[in-house]
Amino acid sequence: MEDKWQNEYDFAVQVARAAGAVIRKAGEEEIKVQTKSCAVDLVTKTDERVEKIIIGSLKEHFGDEHCFIGEESVSSGQPCILTDKPTWIIDPVDGTTNFVHGFPFVAVSIAFAVNKELEFGVVYSCLEDKMYKARKGKGAFCDDEQIQVSDVKDIHKSIIISEHGVDRSVDRVTKIFSTMQKILCIPVHGLRGSGTAATNMCLVASGATEAFFEIGIHCWDIAAGVVIVREAGGLVLDVDGGPFDLMSQRMMSANNITIAQRIIKEIEIFPVPRDDAPAPKKK
Amino acid sequence: MEDKWQNEYDFAVQVARAAGAVIRKAGEEEIKVQTKSCAVDLVTKTDERVEKIIIGSLKEHFGDEHCFIGEESVSSGQPCILTDKPTWIIDPVDGTTNFVHGFPFVAVSIAFAVNKELEFGVVYSCLEDKMYKARKGKGAFCDDEQIQVSDVKDIHKSIIISEHGVDRSVDRVTKIFSTMQKILCIPVHGLRGSGTAATNMCLVASGATEAFFEIGIHCWDIAAGVVIVREAGGLVLDVDGGPFDLMSQRMMSANNITIAQRIIKEIEIFPVPRDDAPAPKKK
Repeated sequence: MEDKWQNEYDFAVQVARAAGAVIRKAGEEEIKVQTKSCAVDLVTKTDERVEKIIIGSLKEHFGDEHCFIGEESVSSGQPCILTDKPTWIIDPVDGTTNFVHGFPFVAVSIAFAVNKELEFGVVYSCLEDKMYKARKGKGAFCDDEQIQVSDVKDIHKSIIISEHGVDRSVDRVTKIFSTMQKILCIPVHGLRGSGTAATNMCLVASGATEAFFEIGIHCWDIAAGVVIVREAGGLVLDVDGGPFDLMSQRMMSANNITIAQRIIKEIEIFPVPRDDAPAPKKK
Repeated sequence: MEDKWQNEYDFAVQVARAAGAVIRKAGEEEIKVQTKSCAVDLVTKTDERVEKIIIGSLKEHFGDEHCFIGEESVSSGQPCILTDKPTWIIDPVDGTTNFVHGFPFVAVSIAFAVNKELEFGVVYSCLEDKMYKARKGKGAFCDDEQIQVSDVKDIHKSIIISEHGVDRSVDRVTKIFSTMQKILCIPVHGLRGSGTAATNMCLVASGATEAFFEIGIHCWDIAAGVVIVREAGGLVLDVDGGPFDLMSQRMMSANNITIAQRIIKEIEIFPVPRDDAPAPKKK
């Protein structure tokens, strides 16, 4: 049992690196932008192409026994249901807005779950050329160097990450800004945001920031990061402090419970759908 | 006259690279933090040491004819007055909070002004190992590759940078958040902030973002970046759209006037002192 999923893990690292190379190359060429749900939620041909490359490689290698949840597949109507089967959860290009602009954080995120438990996660920050990876019970690494969360317990010495997301509805944006302002004025050392959730979680895992939370975040954005944060000694919760639910679109990751609970006190929660909610029927 | 200040420019690049190496090394050692003006405005021994190294090298090379404005020197009581004499304007570690946390944007910023005009600027983003530099009339470069601002004119396709700064007074923070929220909801593609002004300006110069503005920013944070943005084809203004004043603590940089003016409409201005204001008398 020791080496169970080792092949899958090694192959995921290899696929993430290859996908990152495709993304870097595409970034140098002209990027044709299409609009997805709205003007600020960008999707490029690269997202679709890279997801096909990743899922194609995995299917070829591991056959059809495995299930797949990929950002672009779900966008195009595939189901987003986590079963007990071995399941790959994939974001081919996390940080598409950054990618389109050449802002330096763009990540490939690949996670693997069995019996609804995350077994490993790989995040390749391809413009920085940093490979983050973690396997359940075996520690978290960046480029083969073991990483761990920050040991800061004093909230006043923390940097906190959150993101505005792509939805610009007034109630939502107002609550996000109100939450950020209250956190800034605790006070903390600062607020940051890389523009990609996968990278944000790696910044928590490597100790550069103390916490990252977001409401309205998808399972493919964070699944790999969840394993990496946990294996780096951090924790992942719901934004109300309860147990984390991968499909809930709600996530609070932190270096320790003291920091997590202090931030949770300030979070103004707004309703979001679940990732595994039935798709609205077409009229 | 062609090569006037070429020696100074070449030497600045060399000194910035050496200073960056000292910063990277210090980052790997334990960082002892002192508080400066308040708990969130960090200064480390590294800031002081690196400024001494930079100013020491420049004095040794160019004699005592040149003047110096350095962040740490001004903090320790040196005057912050720009005269017609050749003057070096230096931030040894821009992004000290990032530095203390290991967040990946930390820059050395060195600018040179004569007759109150900025002649060149060098920004070394030392954790990324990117050397940005520009000389008046000669273009802007990142690692010897010429850079230029983004050609986006549609505000809805822009990424805008601002920062919260270190002051946590209620009126100021409220205006900053209100401004950011209004800009986000124009809507734009996104808001970002690297945590260092010098790097933010280089992100505008290299086309990764369309604009960066801040109120309460010091001359040493932005002097080098101003030359780099201008030479990359961008522009630098006051936050009310008037002419830029290096000592005013107010700065709006953008890829073009269309983007600049649209952002300026949303900025809620609050009062800040000038960098060259007489120091308050000690009681």
